Amino acid sequence: MLVDGKQYKAIWSNLSTGQVFVIDQRHLPHSFVINELTTVDEFALAIRDMIVRGAPLIGVTAAYGMAVAMNEDSSDENIALASNKLKGARPTAVNLSWAVDRMAAALDCLPPADRSGVAMDLAERMSQEDVERNIQIGRNGVALIEEVGRSKPAGEPVRILTHCNAGWLATVDRGTATAPIYEAHERGIKVEIWVDETRPRNQGGALTTWELLHNNVPHTLIVDNAGGHLMQQGFVDICIVGSDRTTATGDVCNKIGTYLKALAAKDNSVPFYAALPKSTIDLALTDGVREIPIENRSEKEVTHIQGLSQNKEVINVRLCPENVKALNPAFDVTPRHLITGIITQDGVHRPDQLPSH
Amino acid sequence: MLVDGKQYKAIWSNLSTGQVFVIDQRHLPHSFVINELTTVDEFALAIRDMIVRGAPLIGVTAAYGMAVAMNEDSSDENIALASNKLKGARPTAVNLSWAVDRMAAALDCLPPADRSGVAMDLAERMSQEDVERNIQIGRNGVALIEEVGRSKPAGEPVRILTHCNAGWLATVDRGTATAPIYEAHERGIKVEIWVDETRPRNQGGALTTWELLHNNVPHTLIVDNAGGHLMQQGFVDICIVGSDRTTATGDVCNKIGTYLKALAAKDNSVPFYAALPKSTIDLALTDGVREIPIENRSEKEVTHIQGLSQNKEVINVRLCPENVKALNPAFDVTPRHLITGIITQDGVHRPDQLPSH
Repeated sequence: MLVDGKQYKAIWSNLSTGQVFVIDQRHLPHSFVINELTTVDEFALAIRDMIVRGAPLIGVTAAYGMAVAMNEDSSDENIALASNKLKGARPTAVNLSWAVDRMAAALDCLPPADRSGVAMDLAERMSQEDVERNIQIGRNGVALIEEVGRSKPAGEPVRILTHCNAGWLATVDRGTATAPIYEAHERGIKVEIWVDETRPRNQGGALTTWELLHNNVPHTLIVDNAGGHLMQQGFVDICIVGSDRTTATGDVCNKIGTYLKALAAKDNSVPFYAALPKSTIDLALTDGVREIPIENRSEKEVTHIQGLSQNKEVINVRLCPENVKALNPAFDVTPRHLITGIITQDGVHRPDQLPSH
Repeated sequence: MLVDGKQYKAIWSNLSTGQVFVIDQRHLPHSFVINELTTVDEFALAIRDMIVRGAPLIGVTAAYGMAVAMNEDSSDENIALASNKLKGARPTAVNLSWAVDRMAAALDCLPPADRSGVAMDLAERMSQEDVERNIQIGRNGVALIEEVGRSKPAGEPVRILTHCNAGWLATVDRGTATAPIYEAHERGIKVEIWVDETRPRNQGGALTTWELLHNNVPHTLIVDNAGGHLMQQGFVDICIVGSDRTTATGDVCNKIGTYLKALAAKDNSVPFYAALPKSTIDLALTDGVREIPIENRSEKEVTHIQGLSQNKEVINVRLCPENVKALNPAFDVTPRHLITGIITQDGVHRPDQLPSH
């Protein structure tokens, strides 16, 4: 997608030099910084410190990390060592293990001398697959936006509410929840996006707004509290969110607060969709509320916040009295009965009729 | 209530000197500042600049402002002039007009020479009435907390979720939503309060936590996104919120985001109560979602936030890219079908059986 008018991906390689670059997302939206990652340790650090974030992007980053590791030392021992380093960087992300294991399985079959070249090709292919999958999610989802548009007076935008950042910054390109939005925008369908700021980490306010600004998609930032009121007043036509993990039965685990928006959508007959790659569907699970463990993150994400001061410094400020105790669950589960449909690369599914991979 | 172990009200007068003092709430929670208000202009400014906020507190502040105005000039002209100054400070607050009109009506009947003394007595009485009303709300509401407590294993706290600050800082003392909480705490009923931070102005994170800390009521700060998940997991026993305006039919207008919590409470069979003085009930209204106009406040409250830097300076930081458009509705309406009951100074009412004043 565009940054200052130029095409970027969230991660990319220079095929002639073998260099790998990422956008350092810790600095967004206040400055645009590109990092080159040169050692497997730097890849692990980039994942751990959230220089890159978003399940699909983390997976592809780890794949490139495996390729760089093979460049350093293509022994069997180093396949195991690099796998452990990368998987350990964020142990809860399912995509990370999946990507590393896929790389390791392919490399194990090869003589060490061939590993480095093949590894870079495979990482490149995994990156390209992510983009193609997201483009397909966009094409499948855009039909829903078009349909809503047809029911509106001519010239009025389709107003889409999204939560957190399931945008191109969470993937290699296009995003998941944003893929239908970008597709609609490129097809000339008028859209207006309600961006939930998404406390505590404010990925909506910091990242989704930044993406949409640079790609000229009209949008308005709101606090997480506002979406229900907007739906009640008829100002939201459709909701599209991402997912970190989805049960075989269609319960959607996503960023904390998604469930509240789904309740409001149901109460106001606003269609509510989750857009996700099929790899997010966990076929072993049937009851999301009971079975999906929810990570509690640092209290500091609640008690403090990062922003840009008037002196243009990025600083942390405390929002509450000293010594206040906080609880910070990172995700919640939206039960399938609140979900109108699930958009994957295969099509738009009823939540109780998901594809079995 | 207590601040550093000492009893305070949000506004108080020194009966021998006639001085009036308020807690300057703009500095909370980072510092505790007391202001003396000496002229009617200072009272109007205190209301306009939100040195004091909360409908009941604004009303009482304006009453004291009228008394101080009579001290300056007890003419008929000055009754009208002071009324206009004070009412104009925040034109949307219903309590403000009500309090000023009550003062003006009483003063109009008196010869100018008697006005100053009577005005101070009446302001004092209105302040005392607020406290007594809130104590009564607390006594009526505590029964609900006790009832929940009886159904829990011995020793486990009753976990109460509240939104925004309907605390003693929004009134003269005790608060409305917090009145049953303080009453329960003083009676030795174990409670644990979930405090919604309440973006955009963070009155929960900044004021409610500060109140509860100083009064030793156990509490945990959460982002506004988290309450639904906590209810889903069985971690919330009862919700109590305040109200800025309530229809005769029991629709509750309160701080933005209240509606989302009420939806989650309904979905998880958690009882949901609003605590309010009867003066909040607007007998002319029957459909809150359609009839209550919702104030849109400054975009800056969404795009920026105030906090304490590491250098202990209170500063504003920007949370999103420059030039992001934001919408900032300040209130929403919770339809009565989501409300278990409404607590007033008269008792606990079904939302469709409210007292007609």
